[in-house]
Amino acid sequence: MTADTGLGDLLDGNDVAGLQQWLADHPPHVVADELARADEVTAVFCFRLLAKDRAVEVFEELDAVDQQKILEGLRDQTFRHVVEEMDPDDRARLLGEAPANFAQRVLAGLSSRERALTAPLLGYEQDAVGRYMSPELVLLKERSTVAEALDRVRRVGPDAETVYTLPVVDDRRHLVGVASLREVVLAPPARPLIELVDTEFPRVYATDNAETAARLMQEANLLGLPVVDSEERVVGILTVDDAIELIEEADTEDVARQAGAEPVEGHYLSVGVFRLARARIIWLFLLILAATLTAGVLQAFEGELAEVTALAVFIPLLVGTGGNVGAQAATAAVRAIAVGELRTGDVARVAWRECRVGFLLGVGLGVVGMVLATVMTDGRIAVTVSLSLVLICSWAAVVGSAMPLLARQLGIDPAVISAPLVTTLVDATGLVIYFLIARAVLGL
Amino acid sequence: MTADTGLGDLLDGNDVAGLQQWLADHPPHVVADELARADEVTAVFCFRLLAKDRAVEVFEELDAVDQQKILEGLRDQTFRHVVEEMDPDDRARLLGEAPANFAQRVLAGLSSRERALTAPLLGYEQDAVGRYMSPELVLLKERSTVAEALDRVRRVGPDAETVYTLPVVDDRRHLVGVASLREVVLAPPARPLIELVDTEFPRVYATDNAETAARLMQEANLLGLPVVDSEERVVGILTVDDAIELIEEADTEDVARQAGAEPVEGHYLSVGVFRLARARIIWLFLLILAATLTAGVLQAFEGELAEVTALAVFIPLLVGTGGNVGAQAATAAVRAIAVGELRTGDVARVAWRECRVGFLLGVGLGVVGMVLATVMTDGRIAVTVSLSLVLICSWAAVVGSAMPLLARQLGIDPAVISAPLVTTLVDATGLVIYFLIARAVLGL
Repeated sequence: MTADTGLGDLLDGNDVAGLQQWLADHPPHVVADELARADEVTAVFCFRLLAKDRAVEVFEELDAVDQQKILEGLRDQTFRHVVEEMDPDDRARLLGEAPANFAQRVLAGLSSRERALTAPLLGYEQDAVGRYMSPELVLLKERSTVAEALDRVRRVGPDAETVYTLPVVDDRRHLVGVASLREVVLAPPARPLIELVDTEFPRVYATDNAETAARLMQEANLLGLPVVDSEERVVGILTVDDAIELIEEADTEDVARQAGAEPVEGHYLSVGVFRLARARIIWLFLLILAATLTAGVLQAFEGELAEVTALAVFIPLLVGTGGNVGAQAATAAVRAIAVGELRTGDVARVAWRECRVGFLLGVGLGVVGMVLATVMTDGRIAVTVSLSLVLICSWAAVVGSAMPLLARQLGIDPAVISAPLVTTLVDATGLVIYFLIARAVLGL
Repeated sequence: MTADTGLGDLLDGNDVAGLQQWLADHPPHVVADELARADEVTAVFCFRLLAKDRAVEVFEELDAVDQQKILEGLRDQTFRHVVEEMDPDDRARLLGEAPANFAQRVLAGLSSRERALTAPLLGYEQDAVGRYMSPELVLLKERSTVAEALDRVRRVGPDAETVYTLPVVDDRRHLVGVASLREVVLAPPARPLIELVDTEFPRVYATDNAETAARLMQEANLLGLPVVDSEERVVGILTVDDAIELIEEADTEDVARQAGAEPVEGHYLSVGVFRLARARIIWLFLLILAATLTAGVLQAFEGELAEVTALAVFIPLLVGTGGNVGAQAATAAVRAIAVGELRTGDVARVAWRECRVGFLLGVGLGVVGMVLATVMTDGRIAVTVSLSLVLICSWAAVVGSAMPLLARQLGIDPAVISAPLVTTLVDATGLVIYFLIARAVLGL
């Protein structure tokens, strides 16, 4: 569904007419994707070739970092037009992530109406609902009829971000409930609006966490979620497209953290090599320090190793398998927490389940290990390897599943309990298990 | 946002009145979550306590496997009511995943209208758009006025899954384009509808892949996506709530695969221990077989190991670090492919980027390794360890990033290139690098 002859080919051919044709023929999100992949100079060049209104559409599809990349390359006229046409919530997100002097330049260029809409959003925390909500909405009065409500939608609707979820308020702008455009359109005109209002409709505070609000919208299948201030007055609405984007960003972050890397914003191909390395090195440093534990364990057992070198042969296999089992359990637990299936109180139940899963896995793998080790070395080492697998797998599954839940109990993002972190911790303890069993079986 | 005194406490207290109150007070998605967490008997018991219409709402929030769990425990009257009230697309999904005799019993119990709506959906492949689309929609005629269109929405709307995205068709039901309810409501009644129609609006075939269609909706911010048959006639519509669910399921699958486990359907806590073990064991078997490569490498270098036992001390640290770097690169690549940022043609560009990232990481970690190894052993082993880190990290990053893209080129799901798979492959080659460097530096 993306174009196969991308911008690259047309640019290489220096075919400006073809390029303009391509830019005009493809939907905004496809063009945005190409711009994000390109370097700054190319992106700005192509952006200039877009028709004025299309440019705005394409711009809205870009991530904040890519938007900034393009804005920095534009001269003032186009710049002003693009920023003026953005939705206030998108603009707030762009400004919130941009350097201060850049943000000031953008704000200064805005018309007073747009500036008035944007400034309050910037007052909220980076991850608060307030940053992502749209302040442009249609508010209905609780005492109107359906006909009056529809009339109001027609008047105010053209400027609103959505008209499908319609917050209904009393005289002091307090949220009474929500009516959907669907019900308003389907109802007889003379009916009092209040009869259509769902007073139990979920609502969030502008200071609430944005990801949590987005997940609520997903679970309850909402197209819009009214946002209120601390006095229950409506200040905005969170729309489903922003919620989807929030969830995708959160999932991408979780995925990165699971692999032991800090999330990097922006298109994968447009992020610099140094920034990628920086996002990954912190965890690697911590992990290599944790890995010295394994080196310490091996040094403690160096006597045994010197006596039976064949024991060393199975070290990577054992720590690898233990790590894999731990990583599976940790990943399953982190995901179950993220989608709301697990709570902190479940830790004992989860650990006991995973202990049995790990035992089953250990028995299955122990048989394989027994065969492999018998073929490669001798029977007693095979027994050691296979017993170790059973114990290491059970232990790894318990540690892997319990750690994310314990982290959450301590108020730490469970996704930080990455597969590599679990693996590294399981490695050291797994080696201790291995050498203790070796001592017993081989009589060292 | 979820209840803290859950069903469990009320059930333990045998407090049926309190239970009924709790079930009536909480929104459907919260109740559904509690039912999914409970065992079959409890879930069915609680489900019976729900008011008739609420039962349907709660039921729709459940995953197909959990729906089946509850239906199997219900007697015929409630059973028929619940299934009759489901949306045809949800019903098709439930039936598609249930055993054949169960599915037949359900179909047989349906009214002829609902059966006629469900049966065609079952004709599509498990992962096709046809399974997820809703056949109940509002079709507008291209030659109507805005007033006529609105009239039709009022007549047909109550039965349709959505009225916000309105496909517009010609006399032979061919898709001409799409009008949004927003534009229809805001436009003057006498205006010809065709002037509001977006003829460039995306569309998909019922046989297209459902996940791809859902990602398209996400990228283009659509609330509904018209679905056509091979002759471009409208057969249904995919709605944003189904798209979100599709994406969440696909992401959960990717996450599981990334950790080297097959995805397991259903609530984490309601899935049996044996099913969990089965989902994970296949990959573990493959991985332990791949890990014999590392054992083989070590056996080949057993002479060197016997001579300098201290070399063994750093094996887990080196293979662990290499594995971590490879896993980071693989995870980043898999995610970038999933969200559409990378294509198969990018493999050389990606490998070269990651090679440089890996080199930077290797240099950073090499310094740490040098210090650690000097403290723990002696200078020449430290040089070996630190040189190995530089080479292993560069190599791991290249392998980790290139493999998912190569997999995709071969038509394999890139998420199958899990972190453990990359780790295991990098382990063996990393050991070869280590011992070759050791031979050169230590003169073995």
